[in-house]
Amino acid sequence: MSKQRHQRSKKAGLPPGTLVHIGEKRAEKTKITIIDFDGADFHERETDAVDECFLFKDKPGVTWINMEGVHHVELLERLGECYGFHSLVLEDVMNTEQRPKMEDYSDYLYVVLKMLRYNDSDGGTLSEQISLIVGPNFVFSFQEGIEGDVFGVIRERIRSNKGRIRKMGADYLAYSLIDAIVDNYFAVLEKLGEKVELLEEMIVSNPETETLREIHFLKSEMIFLRKAVWPLREVINALERGESALVRESTRVYLRDVYDHTIQIIDTVETFRDTVSGMLDIYLSSVSNRLNAVMKVLTIIATIFMPLTFIAGIYGMNFKYMPELQWRIGYPLFWLVILVIAGTMLIFFRKKDWL
Amino acid sequence: MSKQRHQRSKKAGLPPGTLVHIGEKRAEKTKITIIDFDGADFHERETDAVDECFLFKDKPGVTWINMEGVHHVELLERLGECYGFHSLVLEDVMNTEQRPKMEDYSDYLYVVLKMLRYNDSDGGTLSEQISLIVGPNFVFSFQEGIEGDVFGVIRERIRSNKGRIRKMGADYLAYSLIDAIVDNYFAVLEKLGEKVELLEEMIVSNPETETLREIHFLKSEMIFLRKAVWPLREVINALERGESALVRESTRVYLRDVYDHTIQIIDTVETFRDTVSGMLDIYLSSVSNRLNAVMKVLTIIATIFMPLTFIAGIYGMNFKYMPELQWRIGYPLFWLVILVIAGTMLIFFRKKDWL
Amino acid sequence: MSKQRHQRSKKAGLPPGTLVHIGEKRAEKTKITIIDFDGADFHERETDAVDECFLFKDKPGVTWINMEGVHHVELLERLGECYGFHSLVLEDVMNTEQRPKMEDYSDYLYVVLKMLRYNDSDGGTLSEQISLIVGPNFVFSFQEGIEGDVFGVIRERIRSNKGRIRKMGADYLAYSLIDAIVDNYFAVLEKLGEKVELLEEMIVSNPETETLREIHFLKSEMIFLRKAVWPLREVINALERGESALVRESTRVYLRDVYDHTIQIIDTVETFRDTVSGMLDIYLSSVSNRLNAVMKVLTIIATIFMPLTFIAGIYGMNFKYMPELQWRIGYPLFWLVILVIAGTMLIFFRKKDWL
Amino acid sequence: MSKQRHQRSKKAGLPPGTLVHIGEKRAEKTKITIIDFDGADFHERETDAVDECFLFKDKPGVTWINMEGVHHVELLERLGECYGFHSLVLEDVMNTEQRPKMEDYSDYLYVVLKMLRYNDSDGGTLSEQISLIVGPNFVFSFQEGIEGDVFGVIRERIRSNKGRIRKMGADYLAYSLIDAIVDNYFAVLEKLGEKVELLEEMIVSNPETETLREIHFLKSEMIFLRKAVWPLREVINALERGESALVRESTRVYLRDVYDHTIQIIDTVETFRDTVSGMLDIYLSSVSNRLNAVMKVLTIIATIFMPLTFIAGIYGMNFKYMPELQWRIGYPLFWLVILVIAGTMLIFFRKKDWL
Amino acid sequence: MSKQRHQRSKKAGLPPGTLVHIGEKRAEKTKITIIDFDGADFHERETDAVDECFLFKDKPGVTWINMEGVHHVELLERLGECYGFHSLVLEDVMNTEQRPKMEDYSDYLYVVLKMLRYNDSDGGTLSEQISLIVGPNFVFSFQEGIEGDVFGVIRERIRSNKGRIRKMGADYLAYSLIDAIVDNYFAVLEKLGEKVELLEEMIVSNPETETLREIHFLKSEMIFLRKAVWPLREVINALERGESALVRESTRVYLRDVYDHTIQIIDTVETFRDTVSGMLDIYLSSVSNRLNAVMKVLTIIATIFMPLTFIAGIYGMNFKYMPELQWRIGYPLFWLVILVIAGTMLIFFRKKDWL
Repeated sequence: MSKQRHQRSKKAGLPPGTLVHIGEKRAEKTKITIIDFDGADFHERETDAVDECFLFKDKPGVTWINMEGVHHVELLERLGECYGFHSLVLEDVMNTEQRPKMEDYSDYLYVVLKMLRYNDSDGGTLSEQISLIVGPNFVFSFQEGIEGDVFGVIRERIRSNKGRIRKMGADYLAYSLIDAIVDNYFAVLEKLGEKVELLEEMIVSNPETETLREIHFLKSEMIFLRKAVWPLREVINALERGESALVRESTRVYLRDVYDHTIQIIDTVETFRDTVSGMLDIYLSSVSNRLNAVMKVLTIIATIFMPLTFIAGIYGMNFKYMPELQWRIGYPLFWLVILVIAGTMLIFFRKKDWL
Repeated sequence: MSKQRHQRSKKAGLPPGTLVHIGEKRAEKTKITIIDFDGADFHERETDAVDECFLFKDKPGVTWINMEGVHHVELLERLGECYGFHSLVLEDVMNTEQRPKMEDYSDYLYVVLKMLRYNDSDGGTLSEQISLIVGPNFVFSFQEGIEGDVFGVIRERIRSNKGRIRKMGADYLAYSLIDAIVDNYFAVLEKLGEKVELLEEMIVSNPETETLREIHFLKSEMIFLRKAVWPLREVINALERGESALVRESTRVYLRDVYDHTIQIIDTVETFRDTVSGMLDIYLSSVSNRLNAVMKVLTIIATIFMPLTFIAGIYGMNFKYMPELQWRIGYPLFWLVILVIAGTMLIFFRKKDWL
Repeated sequence: MSKQRHQRSKKAGLPPGTLVHIGEKRAEKTKITIIDFDGADFHERETDAVDECFLFKDKPGVTWINMEGVHHVELLERLGECYGFHSLVLEDVMNTEQRPKMEDYSDYLYVVLKMLRYNDSDGGTLSEQISLIVGPNFVFSFQEGIEGDVFGVIRERIRSNKGRIRKMGADYLAYSLIDAIVDNYFAVLEKLGEKVELLEEMIVSNPETETLREIHFLKSEMIFLRKAVWPLREVINALERGESALVRESTRVYLRDVYDHTIQIIDTVETFRDTVSGMLDIYLSSVSNRLNAVMKVLTIIATIFMPLTFIAGIYGMNFKYMPELQWRIGYPLFWLVILVIAGTMLIFFRKKDWL
Repeated sequence: MSKQRHQRSKKAGLPPGTLVHIGEKRAEKTKITIIDFDGADFHERETDAVDECFLFKDKPGVTWINMEGVHHVELLERLGECYGFHSLVLEDVMNTEQRPKMEDYSDYLYVVLKMLRYNDSDGGTLSEQISLIVGPNFVFSFQEGIEGDVFGVIRERIRSNKGRIRKMGADYLAYSLIDAIVDNYFAVLEKLGEKVELLEEMIVSNPETETLREIHFLKSEMIFLRKAVWPLREVINALERGESALVRESTRVYLRDVYDHTIQIIDTVETFRDTVSGMLDIYLSSVSNRLNAVMKVLTIIATIFMPLTFIAGIYGMNFKYMPELQWRIGYPLFWLVILVIAGTMLIFFRKKDWL
Repeated sequence: MSKQRHQRSKKAGLPPGTLVHIGEKRAEKTKITIIDFDGADFHERETDAVDECFLFKDKPGVTWINMEGVHHVELLERLGECYGFHSLVLEDVMNTEQRPKMEDYSDYLYVVLKMLRYNDSDGGTLSEQISLIVGPNFVFSFQEGIEGDVFGVIRERIRSNKGRIRKMGADYLAYSLIDAIVDNYFAVLEKLGEKVELLEEMIVSNPETETLREIHFLKSEMIFLRKAVWPLREVINALERGESALVRESTRVYLRDVYDHTIQIIDTVETFRDTVSGMLDIYLSSVSNRLNAVMKVLTIIATIFMPLTFIAGIYGMNFKYMPELQWRIGYPLFWLVILVIAGTMLIFFRKKDWL
């Protein structure tokens, strides 16, 4: 997150609508994939020339244009001119630090989402911004350009004409993309859930400093997830309840379904947050308990040996007139006293439940 | 919870309305119980062939079809076709990880609830998802298939024509099922209440590490209950205030009654949560208090015996010219000094209220 | 609270409107007091036969029927039949575990309240549920049957025709009862306030384990009070702003006054809660401070006597060739060294502000 | 606060509108100041006879009647009769434990406020209740009777005909009084702000037990202020947005200004609360840190001298055959060993950063 | 903040609309910059005579008058007279302790904002109040008079006729100024973000007392930022959704863009707050952990050497009849026992995981 944050101020003072890329430049070239289909036909092509998109502008079928990499200013400018996108939209597409949002420009809808993926290598969550521009017969999807996405299954469904996707309009395609993104949140949550459970066991069995760091890490992840999911819910709600004619009635019932999913995700995130917060309390209590245990050992040792050492010290004194020292029975008696004292102490500690 | 969570991601990317069972497969076969009644007649049959349900579709009386086990895809598909249920409804029926919700499909209402039962063996709360589909003259109830349910009393009331249940419509039957589920929450709460009280006593008398784990466990239970109860309240409110013609005016007053119960349950859960949170504070304070007690013992012992040992050490020195050692009265004098010092210390500690 | 809670589950699965008494049976017999009055006349009688109530049903004056004890099923059933109360109302009357609420059954209003009284013997708060049924010319008040109530002053005002109570309708009578109940909350709060203040002093002067228990107890009391007062506010607001024709315009201004009182009570309860929460922090800090003080004593003692004992130990050694032992001045020199070391230590600790 | 609270229960059970004084009786006699003015004329007189007020009832100019002391029942009764005030208003005037509120009795507005003044002698905040009754051409202000008020500047402005106050109506006068009260909150906040800053420095430099008490005191002050300011905001909002014809359009813009001030006050109070809460955390951390420091000293001393004392103890033993004791070099060697061990320890602690 | 706060009470009791400067006097003279432009022409002049502003009052182009320093009462009075500003507006302009707000005076809008700048020298955030008065063809901006501002880029854009700023009206100019201010918040947040990250590393590696102070400082900064940003959001929302004809439809889409930015800023501030709160928990846990470590060292040392010293003490006793002392093997045996005991202890501690 940190690196990205540092670049936001580059834009300070620039006129609105100035195209500046904010975020890491992930891919060298912007890869464009065009999928054009209707119930009968299907075309797919991959290119890096933005002009090819223009050919599909007024075709009757649904066109899905997916772009990986949003750092080419002039490419986006030309696209914007051709399709008549507002310059603020293009500015937002290039700014990968957006908050999820939905804006209705009457001719098209602009949707920003975060695509989350679990990063197996370092156990963190990878976030990539997806911008969707949904028109009457086209959907643009802009990715930051990180290798891979979660849209593979959708491409497959279009190619193989599975389900109703080929028969529905651009709004249904957009819904499908959003659904794929939201579905993937569950996978991320499952991974985090596993971690939370692992941590819960560790805390009970062995509260290390490492555990503390792990709790801190999980907490940050939760904060991060929350930031991504809460506005997502509003976005989908706005799509479902919005008055835009671009979202057909038949698609809204599906959006309600995704909406339910986001609520479920929020629920789970909040539960995790509560759990992790609780774990910190448990951790602190465990540490206190261990301190108590350590101190008890110290106190027992000191309480037993200090009096004994004192007594031994007494008979180590060199007073000329110390009758006990001359007694035959002195030394065995000393041992007896010692053992009685030590025994009494042990019984005392046992009664106090310290042993 | 954990195992279920791992299966949610199976659905990622599938087209909406694809039937995938999410959750533990609890029963081998789906058991179907059909109860058909009106004021005069009453039929009950148990089967595992879904086709039998279709016979009751257009009968004038109220039909209650209860299914245990929601993992048979084709069974649900055929049911959905026959009754014209939306594929999203069927998908949700099979997904046992739903959040309580109510959806109005104009021809029928779809309600998801959590049936809670207290598990006596391990002291945890057992949650089973119940889906209700309420039509003009039928109620479908889908259970996950865990042995037993809380509907026994309702079956009995129908069989024996007790109360007004046989005279009312499908909406009243649905209300009765919901009421039975909500009523059982009270039983769960009572069990938890007993635990909370037990714990409260334990904390005061004997704050063990075990207590901490128990608090943690109760806290998780509360989080879990909250997650089940809060949306439940909205569901029942939506039923009561909703505009669906499927819920008659006469039934709404009963729904208001259940609504009051859910508020009472929420109230109790929140009170328990506050109490359990308070207990953690008390626990931590108790641990601190005990540490204090331990440290006082140590300090008293050390403060008394360190000076004494030092004095004994002095007269154990081998200086050639130490007049005290030659005194006749040296050794008794030494004891006198020792006792005076120890006595002074004890008085000092008593005054400081450490003894 | 605990015992009552255990009985709620008795009702699980019963048809709605089934009369089951939930709560402790407080009085053997249900005592019925009928007060009938208008501006001119006044009748009062005490009975245990419910039939006498029926005589007053259609009389023009205002009738106040007060019942102590709500555990007689058939008594309530007959009352309900005669006056045409909904079975859910009667069910709620018998369930003494209700949350304060107001329900408008158009012919009559049903109000549930908690009458709080401070129990001087154990310092706790006693809660008794009061149900009011307010009709056009009658008010029923149902008490659980604990000895005594807070309505004495109202009876006196009716008997002596003091104030406007005899001239107003049933709604004003109901208001007066509610007002008497709410006024008594202030008495409870004053008692709790005294305790909070006492505790505040104790914490500063002497933070004992007992204090902790007291804080815990006060916290529970606050949670309990909150549960009673918050819904009360909604109840009175609903009465004041409700559209029921049973509440006359002239009475609403008085209800607004009671409403103000409930807000003031809530304010006070919240302030107490904040104060009590703050006290726990202070308590914990005090405990930590005392631990610090204890540890300082220990450290000072150990730091002074350990080096001294070591030095004494050195000259207790039996090496053949230890020149110091032979010195005439050895022993006085030893004392000088000892005193210098001890003095230095004391100065050091004074500078560190530990003494 | 405590003493006042104890008197509230005096009213329990009395009919509404019964005049009972609740609060400390501050002034022996009720002092009445009448100021009557219009753009041209100005009269001021001081009296203790309530009848003089009646003379101004129907005069065309604006009359401001200020009363200090609200404990004379019959005085208020006669006033109420003459001006036709509702008995509930008079009851509230005499009850100095009101929450700030505004009530619209169509003929007049009743406003309750808290006048705060900083008490320099004990550093606490002094609160005095002010009741305003605002009619078409009069304003009554009732004070509890504590010496002095914050209205001096207003009197001066009226006398000297400064600003527009003499040209505007009773509503503007009421606004001016409220404004003066609210302005004085800033003075109180500034004093508290100074204290907060002082405390912030003390915590960092020297966290004493005294500090803890100071934090506790500031916290209570914040709770107290909050209780006064939050409802104040609603009161002024209700005046500004209310539909009462008594508040002219030209005055509303000024009320909006006061409203902004209350929001600013709330903002500051909340910031202080956050700051003071943060200070408690810092305090606790500081105490922990100091405990750590103390324990390190103890551990260092013990770790160095315990092994040394043990070694000295060894050569104090009286075994007949201990070769070292006979060595010429024994004693110097002993010192060498001692110094090596102590040196090693010191290096070890330095490396652990404990020194 | 502190110094400013002390001056607010100067205004107590003054009539509303009295011009009093509240805040530090930053600049000696009020510097006035007038920029007048339309699509074709452009004039810029710097002056300290307020009369020059009046020349531009009725010119057709857009006039931007920027004033640095708001402490000259008569200057503002004359300005107010000429342009007909409400005296409350002028009063607010001079009061630099405002909360961000927007007020619609139908002829003009009054907007208060906080311009934040990061202060590199002491790492704090510098806040300067900006008041904007937006009329149909003019924008007044009042600064407190701290050297420099964030409007340089806007001046440049006007001078060089870059973007659409010269073609749009006064509302667009006002938007541009607000946008520049909000954009600069990102720069401040980036700096704070760096600090948060730095601190996060420090806490894990080395929790010093200094860290605690740093956390406290960051917390205060967050509270400060929150106070500035939350009302800012409302301000911009009010501008965007407001009904003022002064804000054209074409400008509203840009205001929505700024609105999004404020939400993003709030999001980031809240995330930082959560992170910093979490850090305090981690810090406290770390301190506890270190205490544990210290105590373990002490306990290990004491537990090993106390028994050994006791044994050495025994054989230092002077009993006449102690057989062991005469044994040839006594001394080596002693060492054996010592080593066995010490070894056992070490194994014991290793098993307890303390070493």
